[in-house]
Amino acid sequence: MKKIEVIQNVLEANDTIANRNRQLLDKHRIFVINIMSAPGAGKTSLILQTLARLKGKLNIAVIEGDVASTVDAEKVQSKAKAVVQINTRNMPESCSLMAAMIESALKDMPLDDIGLILIENVGNLICPAEFTLGEHRRVVISSLPEGDDKPIKYPLIFVDADAVIINKMDLLPHVDFDIAEFRRSITGLNPKVEVFQLSCKTGEGVERWCSWILEQVKTNVVKQ
Amino acid sequence: MKKIEVIQNVLEANDTIANRNRQLLDKHRIFVINIMSAPGAGKTSLILQTLARLKGKLNIAVIEGDVASTVDAEKVQSKAKAVVQINTRNMPESCSLMAAMIESALKDMPLDDIGLILIENVGNLICPAEFTLGEHRRVVISSLPEGDDKPIKYPLIFVDADAVIINKMDLLPHVDFDIAEFRRSITGLNPKVEVFQLSCKTGEGVERWCSWILEQVKTNVVKQ
Repeated sequence: MKKIEVIQNVLEANDTIANRNRQLLDKHRIFVINIMSAPGAGKTSLILQTLARLKGKLNIAVIEGDVASTVDAEKVQSKAKAVVQINTRNMPESCSLMAAMIESALKDMPLDDIGLILIENVGNLICPAEFTLGEHRRVVISSLPEGDDKPIKYPLIFVDADAVIINKMDLLPHVDFDIAEFRRSITGLNPKVEVFQLSCKTGEGVERWCSWILEQVKTNVVKQ
Repeated sequence: MKKIEVIQNVLEANDTIANRNRQLLDKHRIFVINIMSAPGAGKTSLILQTLARLKGKLNIAVIEGDVASTVDAEKVQSKAKAVVQINTRNMPESCSLMAAMIESALKDMPLDDIGLILIENVGNLICPAEFTLGEHRRVVISSLPEGDDKPIKYPLIFVDADAVIINKMDLLPHVDFDIAEFRRSITGLNPKVEVFQLSCKTGEGVERWCSWILEQVKTNVVKQ
């Protein structure tokens, strides 16, 4: 019982900090998207494609979450307005970013010069579902080689997503993946979810994703 | 500090149960392999291939770990001596199997009729690295579409592995994956690790993996 109680405390403390992050972000009119997926589904590639296509339209910063290494931050460094790498290896929760890590990262960013922050969460379909960060939208990437049964096996992360991206569409001829079945599974869990089919390798479908971001940012700024 | 202390207690309690599992398994001369990977890397496909190739040579049981669903257990049901599905969804740790779950699963198995148990851990490269289950060997599957940087980003699971399987070799012409670089990364972390390149789709390379299992089982039984 002691353990469960402590986990409850951790989640509550996380929510409090997430709310504080959200207030700070809204004050600076910064829109934040939390991008989650299994390892290797294409989070960094999607961020690179998004940075390239929205260049000149939005000032974008990136927060990179990884258990270890700075390889992802290095890849986006020269393309983003600001990049902060978070390594979770020695933190109490290494399997997800948490609101306190984002709070700390925001302190290192030029908030008045940023319109959008893309957060690349730790590669994991389980833990990131539990922690809200103060983000405005939650996005899950699934890639074709992972198979079409992921929503059934990891439902929680799909239930709370605003958008699901089906990535690596270029591999469709080479893998067994039933797109209709996958879409049925996610909309069964989450009827309002937005679904994008794209390939970060060929660029196919990325335009629609970027238009969606622009629309979300615009709607959010109008709301404030 | 309170949280860290509790996590420490959980790890110690897990080790105690894992030791108890190991004694029970050794008493019944059962060899156990803990198979870990990111979601969709091919754990179930590898188990299906292994069951097919080792039929008649070993009595094999399977323990399936998933956050939710029984889809994997259903796939192996008719091919294994016994199958137990563990769903971690409502457990305090949902992101990994733990020794207590295995202890409970072993109670449902005909231990005197089993020579090998294949454990399919929850799809995750982080949490399963922390929990020993009482297994004799730890195996990590990486698949080509995930990219060759996984050992750098998720080092812990590779450091403790006895074997690493590079799966989905049939996709090599269609993805960017530097096999030499990947092998350098894992042997840098873990010089004694055994590496297998295979495709569960075409069956290429699976024979060598199955020979390795037979050799490990034989060596272990001789030792007792």
